[in-house]
Amino acid sequence: MTSTIDGGAPPLLDSEGARRAYELDRKHVFHSWSAQDLLDPMVIAGAQGSYVWDGEGNKYLDFSSQLVNTNIGHQHPAVVAAITEQAAKLCTIAPSYVNDARSEAARLIAERTPGELNRIFFTNGGADANEHAVRMARLHTGRQKVLSAYRSYHGGTQLAVNLTGDPRRWANDTASTGTVHFFPPYLYRTAFHSTTQEEESQRALEHLEQLIAYEGPATIAAIILESIPGTAGIYLPPPGYLEGVRELCTRFGIVMIADEVMSGFGRTGKWFAVEHFNVVPDLLTFAKGVNSGYVPMGGVAISPEIAATFGTRVYPGGLTYSGHPLAAAAAVATINAMDREGMVEHAAELGRSVIGPALAGFAQRHVSVGEARGTGVFWAIELVRDRETREPLAPYGSSSGEMNQLLAACKSRGLLPFANFNRIHVVPPCNIGTADTEAGLAILDEVLDIADGMVG
Amino acid sequence: MTSTIDGGAPPLLDSEGARRAYELDRKHVFHSWSAQDLLDPMVIAGAQGSYVWDGEGNKYLDFSSQLVNTNIGHQHPAVVAAITEQAAKLCTIAPSYVNDARSEAARLIAERTPGELNRIFFTNGGADANEHAVRMARLHTGRQKVLSAYRSYHGGTQLAVNLTGDPRRWANDTASTGTVHFFPPYLYRTAFHSTTQEEESQRALEHLEQLIAYEGPATIAAIILESIPGTAGIYLPPPGYLEGVRELCTRFGIVMIADEVMSGFGRTGKWFAVEHFNVVPDLLTFAKGVNSGYVPMGGVAISPEIAATFGTRVYPGGLTYSGHPLAAAAAVATINAMDREGMVEHAAELGRSVIGPALAGFAQRHVSVGEARGTGVFWAIELVRDRETREPLAPYGSSSGEMNQLLAACKSRGLLPFANFNRIHVVPPCNIGTADTEAGLAILDEVLDIADGMVG
Ligand SMILES: Cc1ncc(COP(=O)(O)O)c(C=O)c1O
Ligand SMILES: Cc1ncc(COP(=O)(O)O)c(C=O)c1O
Repeated sequence: MTSTIDGGAPPLLDSEGARRAYELDRKHVFHSWSAQDLLDPMVIAGAQGSYVWDGEGNKYLDFSSQLVNTNIGHQHPAVVAAITEQAAKLCTIAPSYVNDARSEAARLIAERTPGELNRIFFTNGGADANEHAVRMARLHTGRQKVLSAYRSYHGGTQLAVNLTGDPRRWANDTASTGTVHFFPPYLYRTAFHSTTQEEESQRALEHLEQLIAYEGPATIAAIILESIPGTAGIYLPPPGYLEGVRELCTRFGIVMIADEVMSGFGRTGKWFAVEHFNVVPDLLTFAKGVNSGYVPMGGVAISPEIAATFGTRVYPGGLTYSGHPLAAAAAVATINAMDREGMVEHAAELGRSVIGPALAGFAQRHVSVGEARGTGVFWAIELVRDRETREPLAPYGSSSGEMNQLLAACKSRGLLPFANFNRIHVVPPCNIGTADTEAGLAILDEVLDIADGMVG
Repeated sequence: MTSTIDGGAPPLLDSEGARRAYELDRKHVFHSWSAQDLLDPMVIAGAQGSYVWDGEGNKYLDFSSQLVNTNIGHQHPAVVAAITEQAAKLCTIAPSYVNDARSEAARLIAERTPGELNRIFFTNGGADANEHAVRMARLHTGRQKVLSAYRSYHGGTQLAVNLTGDPRRWANDTASTGTVHFFPPYLYRTAFHSTTQEEESQRALEHLEQLIAYEGPATIAAIILESIPGTAGIYLPPPGYLEGVRELCTRFGIVMIADEVMSGFGRTGKWFAVEHFNVVPDLLTFAKGVNSGYVPMGGVAISPEIAATFGTRVYPGGLTYSGHPLAAAAAVATINAMDREGMVEHAAELGRSVIGPALAGFAQRHVSVGEARGTGVFWAIELVRDRETREPLAPYGSSSGEMNQLLAACKSRGLLPFANFNRIHVVPPCNIGTADTEAGLAILDEVLDIADGMVG
């Protein structure tokens, strides 16, 4: 792919600048999801394409896309130019007015979302996108309860973190947010004693249908799920599963919300992950890839039926920065660059021809690899102590000495991985070059040798 | 004030561009707090300093600062330059790393917050700032309940909108978010049958103390309140009130959260509104003015005691764009520009010498004005049908034909007002020029003549 930017050194903070940034950070910055005194954060002094540089000038290949958001890599010149241009024209405007960048971003997104999800409500990120999607579903249906999957992640605000099915919910769970969790299909660690993907799909649907029956269909406003679960482990829904969820939603008048915050905008080799299945949700939430996180933005794409609910009735929600012009201009430039440079197709091709085959090889050759799975530039490797028992290399909800060692081994070899519990994810930008992808995979291959030694 | 930018025409959308922006907006943009089919939104084609232009080239003086966020006016060149510069260097980076712009923004904010609120957790806006502040308070105290004021606004996400005491809460109230509302001091429409500010203060504190006693002090994690209520009507807390709230919080081990999303960063003629009182809250939330909304950002300034709670224990909250480099660079440039150009002092002086005296005159001369009150560039005019009964010109939670007529009269005279129910707020940028301020006030004076005719 000729358009990949893996250029030379970007403007770097010098070591004095990096030292001062670190010092001030430790004194004044309170970090997400962390015990503040136990941190020793890495300075990022610069970034370009699929690479970042630390405060000592070391270069790393970014196989994490930060938090799986830089789908077009770092510092794409067309998007930087669009931000510069919009900043010179108009940085901010209240949501009640019309702004041309916002209008165009809405058009481009609506054009790409499946079905007729043609009305876009803009938010600042993924969490508030999900909060507002749930609100729309509740008011549309007149019901309160929302079902979501165990292991899922839907954001950090109070309702979003209670939708969440991973351990980040626990400390925030007041059992009063109207959320109920179900088991997702996940054959490798099946909750349903299945042996095939078909069986897993059918049993997971049966489970969901039973849960709906016991909770009371008429009490359930929405089912929210990641079209392909991200941080939870990138297990693709088995054949028929999402179609079955769609059918249950339709049958019981439940709003289907697809959370595409991580899986959207090219990540899976399609604009949206639901396109891999024959499914149109009622609401689709997005953030991250919409503008690669260059300016904070998220949103909800809304079906005509739900939009109509708020045609003559006030939608009781909003925020100061809804449809922020700078964020919208970055989205317009991002989507256009992805189109122009064929990034979505490139991501699909990388998955098919480079990452997929390499990971299949890892799963064969490395005894520490329990399973490798994914699509596009969205892959997970499960590390296990024992392929038979599938005992994870770090317990669910936690880390381990071994995992920390392996992540350090990646970094010392110049690779920034995305890790969660016992998994290493391969989630580089959609426009990473083939050679860079292969180089990163070669490092992972080496690190998996170390892992094999730990469990062998 | 020489630095005021009220310059010439900014880059304008042409009428064809404006028409297309409008069309796409109506087709694809879902707007905050609105019935979508009843909207006829104004196109903003450009903005500069305290002025905006619509799609037909009409120029308006922006006495609303949009949503009371452009504290430095539109398109301040130093901030536009800082965004451009940071965009060229590094647009985005995950919250777990160190970024120099974020470090410096945290330092500058910490330097200005009262007391020792020296640790900054960055969010995307005001709602999530309040959500996270409440979480910190709950985990710090081990308690769940949060008290907040009737009439207040704290944001649009599910917890924030339930903290909110204005009608925007109603459609979202599931009575399950652990929020309890108290009556704020508001002498003009006293809930306590008071006749003086001193009496109002003392009785409102007595009310709050009783409420705490009945709810159970040991069940209450936090009291959140706007240091000076914004959208609710800019009624300054009477003498001793905030000090009394501080004392109650300290006595009962309750976390005091000051919401300075609207009142912070110069709006009241000080960096933060709490500085008008002798009070240091435990948590202070901000957004809007921190970078005038040029890039979405909010945050929580945290006391050492609460930060220590998350020293070796994980803070269970976060978001992809926490401490976003572009937003942080805009904050650094905004704060430095405000300092360099003396905007905070200018806002104070405008309040003292220009807006205050003018509004006092309005209250004397115009029978439609029930009360005018405020400080700095943060003022409200209450319109009433009858000065004796104080019957508002629009009912609480609603609008009226008369109010709509008055707002249209402002616009047709080239003034963009901020309105809420029966009030018109005078909330221009902190760096608006004196002559512009006087011109806007002259328009208001004319419009109040019309109002007098309606009620006379
Ligand atoms: C699937 C999913 N939903 C929602 C979110 C929350 O997004 P944000 O961090 O922008 O609030 C994330 C973030 O990782 C996510 O992966
Ligand atoms: C006092 C106050 N708190 C919180 C908010 C919410 O901020 P945001 O719209 O950025 O979520 C606002 C917005 O107007 C506000 O005025």
